[in-house]
Amino acid sequence: MSSLTLFTPAGVLAKSQPLKRAAKRLSQLGFEVEIDADALAKHQRFAGDDATRLAALHRVADAAPSVALATRGGYGMTRLLDQIDWTRLLRSIEQGTRWVGHSDLTALQLGLLAHTKHRGFGLWAGPLACDDFGRTDEEGGVDEVTQDCFVEAMQGLLEAVGFRTEAGFDGLHERGTLWGGNLCVLSSMLGTPHFPKIKGGILFLEDVNEHPYRVERMLLQLAQAGVLQAQKAVVLGEFSAWKKSPLDRGYKLKDAIEAVRARCPGLPILTGLPFGHVPTKVCLPVGAKMDLVVQGREALMIWGPDPAHHHHHEDCGEDCGHDHHDHHAH
Amino acid sequence: MSSLTLFTPAGVLAKSQPLKRAAKRLSQLGFEVEIDADALAKHQRFAGDDATRLAALHRVADAAPSVALATRGGYGMTRLLDQIDWTRLLRSIEQGTRWVGHSDLTALQLGLLAHTKHRGFGLWAGPLACDDFGRTDEEGGVDEVTQDCFVEAMQGLLEAVGFRTEAGFDGLHERGTLWGGNLCVLSSMLGTPHFPKIKGGILFLEDVNEHPYRVERMLLQLAQAGVLQAQKAVVLGEFSAWKKSPLDRGYKLKDAIEAVRARCPGLPILTGLPFGHVPTKVCLPVGAKMDLVVQGREALMIWGPDPAHHHHHEDCGEDCGHDHHDHHAH
Repeated sequence: MSSLTLFTPAGVLAKSQPLKRAAKRLSQLGFEVEIDADALAKHQRFAGDDATRLAALHRVADAAPSVALATRGGYGMTRLLDQIDWTRLLRSIEQGTRWVGHSDLTALQLGLLAHTKHRGFGLWAGPLACDDFGRTDEEGGVDEVTQDCFVEAMQGLLEAVGFRTEAGFDGLHERGTLWGGNLCVLSSMLGTPHFPKIKGGILFLEDVNEHPYRVERMLLQLAQAGVLQAQKAVVLGEFSAWKKSPLDRGYKLKDAIEAVRARCPGLPILTGLPFGHVPTKVCLPVGAKMDLVVQGREALMIWGPDPAHHHHHEDCGEDCGHDHHDHHAH
Repeated sequence: MSSLTLFTPAGVLAKSQPLKRAAKRLSQLGFEVEIDADALAKHQRFAGDDATRLAALHRVADAAPSVALATRGGYGMTRLLDQIDWTRLLRSIEQGTRWVGHSDLTALQLGLLAHTKHRGFGLWAGPLACDDFGRTDEEGGVDEVTQDCFVEAMQGLLEAVGFRTEAGFDGLHERGTLWGGNLCVLSSMLGTPHFPKIKGGILFLEDVNEHPYRVERMLLQLAQAGVLQAQKAVVLGEFSAWKKSPLDRGYKLKDAIEAVRARCPGLPILTGLPFGHVPTKVCLPVGAKMDLVVQGREALMIWGPDPAHHHHHEDCGEDCGHDHHDHHAH
């Protein structure tokens, strides 16, 4: 049974019920769930003051559970970046911890890539406990794809994800380090020592509540900074929950993407990755080498077996009876 | 009589009436107003496609009017930054043009500081024609301080602005190059070749529609990038029109500022500058050396006479009968 710790490194949890529901569901999925002592701490809009959240992060790292799953994002990691003991987090990964989350957790994941040499399977862009496992059935319950991907990824069985992309990329095959996450959080690290200098990578991005003109501005900033053109490919997830403006006059996300493509000739910018602030999200190993392969409109991100998986199963003395999975979310 | 050209380098003007009203009012103020041929061009949410807006910008630069005043901001300068002919803009300044605006125009002003050696009185953070001179009386009309400051600044008569700041800075006296503008636009240039590398400066910032947690995140990014600590002082204008969130739990702009101050010990971060997306705004020479002096709670930003002023008056063969002004906006 995998140990899983729930912790709250950024925004406050206003209520305890979603956390309880998430803990219960994750237990039912076979995880031995622990809730960090300060997961429900409150200070202004944060889950405790900076010292409290930093201590929680380090405490989880020291405990090195199989899975360190954030309860929610919000805003707050930025405040901690200068003070995080990255080697302490790296040690947890060396002991087998998978750190999982998205949104504000992008800052934690990219910071670790910037400050350590970790390139493997210790960082997962994936669900947040309360958002993805804490909803009542009336609120939509748990998304099946999200849950399956998460469980498989945490078992070390998820080796690829597939999705339908737009036409025009048939035959594409690129290999590089996967990195990225929330565009706004990633952008907010540019120019700082916490921004990883990854070249030849596969950059995935998503965002929420950001108008396409703002998405475009952030992408153009990355282009003007030379970040986009240094990548093998960009894979866009969902850009959700933004509001139209009366001044758009037909300008849409598609136009923003076209404007960025025009400025990055030769760079494949794919769309359709099931990831973001939406119920259905795959799990992706941030920092792992992977192949991005497109056949027709079917895109596949393939990273193959997690080397730690076999080690884990040797530990429990059982033969690995698991199927290794590709996950196709259409 | 000063020539003044109105042009639209970024967002589309949905209606022509505010432009007409602004032109009329500026004429009444004594300017010989010209409206650029594409000031009302429309392409999606932009005032014409990129080529149209770039051509307009260069056309205004070549014409070198006394004042080049943008009609509005919005979003659009980012798309042009890589293609602007900065020496062409610099030539207009050498011929006496003052480029005026705020919001998205921050990108133009900072780009010019990044790409040229201009440090003088050619760039003015100030009004936008439609926003500030295009409102009907029912919509609030023209703000008197904004108008007076603008007219004086364009005459080369404005030598300082004063405002009431918070307690705690009595006796402060710093000297440096003024730079800054809209925080979001400035942040969106960080890490790119368009971001000016100004050390020992006085950085002024404002924003609109940005929640304090986002303001904080942008300021912390500037701190983590080493930009804030390299300045002599930061002067904050208005951060307007943001909406509270139920998760704030008492967190306000003040808390954001405190968080930034805690991370930049020794850096004076003043508040109260009458500038931003608000009716009352002073004019500030972006790129000019100035003194920031605080006595009690009275802050003064003093840059002294614009050397071009006397030149202009020699041209018209008249003795300069103008009073030179400090502007106090409380």
